[in-house]
Amino acid sequence: MTIDAAVTDLTGLLGDRLSRAPAVREAHGGSESHFALTLPDAVAFPETTAEVAALTRICTHHRCPVIGWGAGTSLEGHTMAVRGGVTVDFARMNRVLAVNAADMDAQVQPGLTREALNADLRATGLFFPVDPGANATLGGMASTRASGTTAVRYGTMRDNVLALEVVLADGRVIRTGTRARKSAAGYDLTGLLVGAEGTLGLITELTLRLHGQPEAVSAAICAFDSIDTAVETVIATIQMGIPMARIEFLDAATVAACNARSGAAMPLVPHLMVEFHGSPAAVTEQAEVFGEVVAAQGGAGFQWSAQAEDRARLWRMRHEAYWAILASRPGARAIVTDVCVPISRLAEAVTQTQADIAASGLSAPILGHVGDGNFHAIILIDPASPDDIARGDALAHRMVDRALRLGGTATGEHGVGVGKLPYMQAEHGDGWSVMAALKGALDPLNILNPGKLVRQGGTG
Amino acid sequence: MTIDAAVTDLTGLLGDRLSRAPAVREAHGGSESHFALTLPDAVAFPETTAEVAALTRICTHHRCPVIGWGAGTSLEGHTMAVRGGVTVDFARMNRVLAVNAADMDAQVQPGLTREALNADLRATGLFFPVDPGANATLGGMASTRASGTTAVRYGTMRDNVLALEVVLADGRVIRTGTRARKSAAGYDLTGLLVGAEGTLGLITELTLRLHGQPEAVSAAICAFDSIDTAVETVIATIQMGIPMARIEFLDAATVAACNARSGAAMPLVPHLMVEFHGSPAAVTEQAEVFGEVVAAQGGAGFQWSAQAEDRARLWRMRHEAYWAILASRPGARAIVTDVCVPISRLAEAVTQTQADIAASGLSAPILGHVGDGNFHAIILIDPASPDDIARGDALAHRMVDRALRLGGTATGEHGVGVGKLPYMQAEHGDGWSVMAALKGALDPLNILNPGKLVRQGGTG
Repeated sequence: MTIDAAVTDLTGLLGDRLSRAPAVREAHGGSESHFALTLPDAVAFPETTAEVAALTRICTHHRCPVIGWGAGTSLEGHTMAVRGGVTVDFARMNRVLAVNAADMDAQVQPGLTREALNADLRATGLFFPVDPGANATLGGMASTRASGTTAVRYGTMRDNVLALEVVLADGRVIRTGTRARKSAAGYDLTGLLVGAEGTLGLITELTLRLHGQPEAVSAAICAFDSIDTAVETVIATIQMGIPMARIEFLDAATVAACNARSGAAMPLVPHLMVEFHGSPAAVTEQAEVFGEVVAAQGGAGFQWSAQAEDRARLWRMRHEAYWAILASRPGARAIVTDVCVPISRLAEAVTQTQADIAASGLSAPILGHVGDGNFHAIILIDPASPDDIARGDALAHRMVDRALRLGGTATGEHGVGVGKLPYMQAEHGDGWSVMAALKGALDPLNILNPGKLVRQGGTG
Repeated sequence: MTIDAAVTDLTGLLGDRLSRAPAVREAHGGSESHFALTLPDAVAFPETTAEVAALTRICTHHRCPVIGWGAGTSLEGHTMAVRGGVTVDFARMNRVLAVNAADMDAQVQPGLTREALNADLRATGLFFPVDPGANATLGGMASTRASGTTAVRYGTMRDNVLALEVVLADGRVIRTGTRARKSAAGYDLTGLLVGAEGTLGLITELTLRLHGQPEAVSAAICAFDSIDTAVETVIATIQMGIPMARIEFLDAATVAACNARSGAAMPLVPHLMVEFHGSPAAVTEQAEVFGEVVAAQGGAGFQWSAQAEDRARLWRMRHEAYWAILASRPGARAIVTDVCVPISRLAEAVTQTQADIAASGLSAPILGHVGDGNFHAIILIDPASPDDIARGDALAHRMVDRALRLGGTATGEHGVGVGKLPYMQAEHGDGWSVMAALKGALDPLNILNPGKLVRQGGTG
């Protein structure tokens, strides 16, 4: 057994930081989404880059799969041990290594969570803006190219990772990028590794771009009589150059779920939640101009708040929307969709998706990062019902088909994992073969998170 | 002769759009920098992606090098035909294919220049912000990951290319990315191709991110008594979250050259040129706050102008600084350097470079994109003097060594070409081997711009 041999050698390397305990393996075999439990053979808890490199060399020697693990919050089955092997939990590599205030960057270990980083930064006047909702690790967020509510202003992980330290399949350690703000020195290896889902290397250190904590913040929620007018409001605001820090869409079904969870009494129509960051004068001006755009589109119930507690309540409601939606059908699991389309096609994509949902007989509230054209239908299914699963899969499939037809992508921010593998050929054509060629060049034995992202077969 | 056989077949494909005329070859063998004339065997002028694909298949069949050509304005010898072969001039593929105002993007052909695109966009209220100074083509700018004066606000080509159509070495045509604003659907092939300098594929179409033309613009130039105070001003401004659209540094020697060319009478001390974009109120506020920072640092001679003609004069002076510097030593050629460092190390990098310049006996005015930590010393040499060349090379070498020691990069925006090849091992370590492995995977016969960017040898 090649995996058993690897585990024996890894125990020699890590001692009791290599666990085969069923409870530990189970804790690393699941996810927050609907995928089945898929256990690794063992879980490693390295403490240094050198240990990760040694571990990877052992696994390569024995042809044993290696799967990175952050907080387990990914939604496409990225961390499922579909071919067994060793899951590498970065929980013990969770330190802030350096904060360089003048350069507005920080060097961190991959197991650090975004909330822990921001707690550490609080006194510096700086913050790390990427916010996928879950308190994910920064290594995991980089690996899935995460984004979330603030991407419309601050970008995704693609834009906020300056440099990486990475362990390659053969155990070599490379550093990609530098602390300089830009570089034209060859292929963008940082960009290639961000979003690679652990299939090209294991991230052992990140240099992140920080941003100044905004002097003033103002947030609001407002109601619209249709999806079209909500989306038109967003397009007009973007075109006027008003820099929104967040702009979130909730459909009537999502509003109903949020009402039920939070005791709010929002009208059951589409809503936008918006936030501006800047100087007090700039935020005031932006809020005024945005208010005019909303009024012109017939938006209603529009209230601003610069109070931190009001904003916290607003965004807590948004961040908990996923759980609110899950709770709206007791016992249900979610098929989470993640299409992203050009914003000019967003209203039609959402409207047609709602029609599909109605026809399916399932409940699937919609919410999304409307400034990016990215939205999620949270398709609620009974995991014991083959019929539910079939209808849910068909619904998700139609959403992706439509997104691709409209010039968009199957996944705006969640990644491929196993859930979006079936769509990669349609989205990328021969580009998917190029991805396989890159994977083959860097991981010829296919030991790094096999079964994910690229075309299967060959040595896999 | 394999190249002759390729040229014969290419003549069959392109007719008189394949030229072997010496004047045409010479026009495609030089550059604006100090590199020696290095002619291709022939120059092709394709009109369609299908022709580029057919051309590449022919060249692959005959093992004939293929070199992309935009406007010939790159500064590191990217387009030198160091192994002969066919240069592909995209001059006949220079159309705007689509402008999607609601999505703020445009699809263009690679031979379109940035000025032509912006002329086309004028009535839309949108513009393409990346501005390397030269009127480069957008295909060339993408290939070298260009940036320039506006990168501090709008990012580089890395940030402003949404999607590409690319012809691979084997003639396959792929589309990378989509018109959606973000995606997590696999490896970032767009990011890999941007900055690949034509070594992984030939770009035949680009989807570019556009921005709203700012409602108000304000610009100023001000003098400082030292490099330190100028850089401190920039750091403080960035940390306060004031969004500068441009922030340029000129040292005293550059100011002298600009004075001589333009008839201005700026004091011979370091200067900053700055520009703000936004709403009238925002620009006014930003200018005020910036003025306070400048005053606190002892900056002087500070004058704002919101007049378009004043601003045009200011930025013309900046854009022509390279020519002004060249003219300051008649007959000279330039070794252009392009280091980029963390901004906290910028003042020491510039100061130590000036000491090196003084010790070298050469003239090498310094200017740069100070908001990014990127600066250029324009090292003036007599191209007929081996001693000048040796001293200039040594100076450039010390600058790169220092930049790497300070956590920076050999090239912030010009690219590798042949000029920065000697530094790639030191900058990337094993990462440079990874680049070679990627190149080997996508261009195993090394026909795409051979001799550039990656490690030499093998089939090259």
